[in-house]
Amino acid sequence: MDYALIMAGGSGTRLWPLSRQNTPKQALRLVGERSMFQHAVDRLAPDFPAERIFVVTRGEHAALLQQQAPELPVENFIVEPEGRGTAPAIGLAAIHLLRRDPQAVMVVLTADHFISETERFRRAVSAAFQVARQGQLVTLGIQPASPSTGFGYIHQGQPLGEMGGFAVFAVERFVEKPALEAARQMVASGEYSWNSGMFIWQVQRILDEFQRQMPAFYAQLCMVAETLGTPAYHNVLERVWPQVVKQTIDYGIMEGAGDVAVLPVEIGWSDVGSWESLFDLLPVDAQGNAVAGEFLGIDTHNTLVFGGSRLVATIGVEGLVIVDTGDALLVCPRAREQEVRELVGRLKESGKGQWL
Amino acid sequence: MDYALIMAGGSGTRLWPLSRQNTPKQALRLVGERSMFQHAVDRLAPDFPAERIFVVTRGEHAALLQQQAPELPVENFIVEPEGRGTAPAIGLAAIHLLRRDPQAVMVVLTADHFISETERFRRAVSAAFQVARQGQLVTLGIQPASPSTGFGYIHQGQPLGEMGGFAVFAVERFVEKPALEAARQMVASGEYSWNSGMFIWQVQRILDEFQRQMPAFYAQLCMVAETLGTPAYHNVLERVWPQVVKQTIDYGIMEGAGDVAVLPVEIGWSDVGSWESLFDLLPVDAQGNAVAGEFLGIDTHNTLVFGGSRLVATIGVEGLVIVDTGDALLVCPRAREQEVRELVGRLKESGKGQWL
Repeated sequence: MDYALIMAGGSGTRLWPLSRQNTPKQALRLVGERSMFQHAVDRLAPDFPAERIFVVTRGEHAALLQQQAPELPVENFIVEPEGRGTAPAIGLAAIHLLRRDPQAVMVVLTADHFISETERFRRAVSAAFQVARQGQLVTLGIQPASPSTGFGYIHQGQPLGEMGGFAVFAVERFVEKPALEAARQMVASGEYSWNSGMFIWQVQRILDEFQRQMPAFYAQLCMVAETLGTPAYHNVLERVWPQVVKQTIDYGIMEGAGDVAVLPVEIGWSDVGSWESLFDLLPVDAQGNAVAGEFLGIDTHNTLVFGGSRLVATIGVEGLVIVDTGDALLVCPRAREQEVRELVGRLKESGKGQWL
Repeated sequence: MDYALIMAGGSGTRLWPLSRQNTPKQALRLVGERSMFQHAVDRLAPDFPAERIFVVTRGEHAALLQQQAPELPVENFIVEPEGRGTAPAIGLAAIHLLRRDPQAVMVVLTADHFISETERFRRAVSAAFQVARQGQLVTLGIQPASPSTGFGYIHQGQPLGEMGGFAVFAVERFVEKPALEAARQMVASGEYSWNSGMFIWQVQRILDEFQRQMPAFYAQLCMVAETLGTPAYHNVLERVWPQVVKQTIDYGIMEGAGDVAVLPVEIGWSDVGSWESLFDLLPVDAQGNAVAGEFLGIDTHNTLVFGGSRLVATIGVEGLVIVDTGDALLVCPRAREQEVRELVGRLKESGKGQWL
C-alpha cells in the first residue's frame, strides 16, 4: 500500500519572531487560515486515507500538530525524543511503516514548503510511486527558478523514460548548496534541479540502504524496532535516540545510493525558509510591498509588513522587513535578514529567553 | 493669593501612535510612571495647595485628567467645550479665578513640557510672582540650547533689576517662530530666550488686557462670567464658545501689551513636541539609541525604540523611530518624523479611524 510521511520536525529559527520554540515554522499560518503543516495534510487528503498519513515530529511540537490535524490518528504521529536530522527521522518512520505493511511504499514530504500547483503535485507523486515500485529511490526535483545558493541540486543523468507524463532521469549526482557561480552554471546547463527533500521509495528498500550505508544507526534502529507495539518502546527510544548520529538523508543515504531516479517537476514549489521568501507568497502591491495585516504606508517601498490586527504604519521606509507578533517585533533590512538566526541566539544570552 | 493654572488642552498629533484623540500628549507616560500632566501637578504641589491648582482642558480629556490627578478638586477642572487656542483658555480660567479671589495672581503653565530642574523652576516661579504683584505681565524665558525654529523667541530689552536671584528684563519684542538664519543670529546675540508659554500675572491685569486688545472676546467672556455659579453657566458657555475667535495668548495679548517682563531661566526645560525630542529625555546608550522598554539591537544606531513589555528586536538599523503601542506600530526615519502628522491625517481617509 501507499503511505505518506510528513516530516514536521523543524524549528524555523529564521522566521522569528513568528516561529518559536513552541511554535515551529510548520505550525505557522503564514498565508491564509491554514498552517503549512495543515496545507501539507490537505494536499494528501484526496489520495491517502487518514490512516495512511504519518507525521514524524519532535516531542515538544507533537501536541500542537495533533491539534492542527485532528483527522489523523494519534498513533500516526511518530515522536522523536529529540531531532537528529532527516536520516534518523525517516528511519524511525520506516520501521513503523514496515511493521504495519511489509510491502509499504512511502512518500516523504516536508511540512515547511509551499506548493501552489496541487493537482500537478498529486500527479507527480502518483507517477513517482509507480517508479518506486520498480525498486528505484525516487526524488522530486524542482525546476530551478533562480541560481539559488540556498538549496542542494540534483544532476540529471541518463533518461529513464516517462511516467504519468513526467520525464524520469537517473540521478548522476547530488550537489550540496553551491556557491553563486556554480549555481549559475548549473541552472544554465538545464541539467539540474533543486533538491526539494521529497522522496518516494519502498520502505524495505530504504531500510536496506540504511543497513548498507549507516550500519551503526541501522543497528540502533533494530533495537527500537524490536520493541514496537510493546510497553518498552518509549524507554528504548528515549535511551537510544540521544546516541544516534545526526545526519541528513541526502548526505547519509542518497549521495551514496544506487538506482536513484529524479522526476523534475514544476509544481509552484516555494521554500519558506526566511522572511524574504514571503515576497513570493504574499500579494505584492504597486510599491513592491508584501503585506499581511493592517498597514498604512507613506512613501514605503519593497518592504515586508507581516502583522495582524495591530496597525503597522510606516513613513519613508525602503527594503525593510517588519514582523509584528503578539509579544515581539522585528525590524531589519531585507539584505540582512539572514542575521535573524544570530539574533535568536542572542536572546538567551541577554536574558530574553522568554522570546525564544 | 497665588494660583496655578495648568493648560492641558493639547492633542499632540505628532506623538502618534502613542497620543490619540482620547489620550492626548499631556496624559502620556513618556518618561517614568507619571504622565506629563502629573509631572506638572507634582511640580506645583510643594507651593500650592490643591485648592489653588486649576486645570483648563477640553471636554473629551477632562475625565482622564481628573483620574490622573484625583487630589485636585473636581471643580478646579475648567472644561472648554472645544479648544479655541491659548487666549480663550486663559480668559476662561481668569474669570473663574477672579470670582474666587479678586486679588488673585496666577501662573499659567503647560502640561506638555518637561522640566528637569524642579527646584530652580520653583524659585523662578516664586520670583516671577513677586514681579507680577508689581503689575507686570511676566513670562519665563528659556535660555536657548540651540537655534531652534520650533519656538517663538523673546527679545530682552532694558534690565529691570533682579528678583530672587533672577535677572528681570523688560520685553522688547516677541518674535514668532523664525527661519534658521534668524534663529542663529538671535541665539548668538545672547539677547533672546525661547518663549516657553509660562506666564505670571495678576488676574485683573490680564483681564484688562483682554478688554483692551480683544474686546469682542472680552464681551463674550463677560456673558459667561455673569453665569458663573449658576445653572445657566454650561448652556451659555456651550453657546458662546464656538463663536469665540481662535487666538494664541502670544499673538492676541503679549505682543501688544505694555509692562511685559521676562525672567530668563535655566530649568532643564524640554519641549516634547515630537518623537525626536525623546532623545533628550530618555537614556541614550553607547550606540546612540534612545530606548524605553524591552529591546535587543544588533548593529543598531541612533534609533529611538519606544515600546513597552513587547520585545523590539532590530538588525542593521540606523536613525529610525520605532514606536510600539498596544494596537499600533510606527516605523519611520528620524529625518521624516514631521510627516507623522500627515500620516494621522491619512488614517481617517483610509478607513482606519479606530487608530486616531
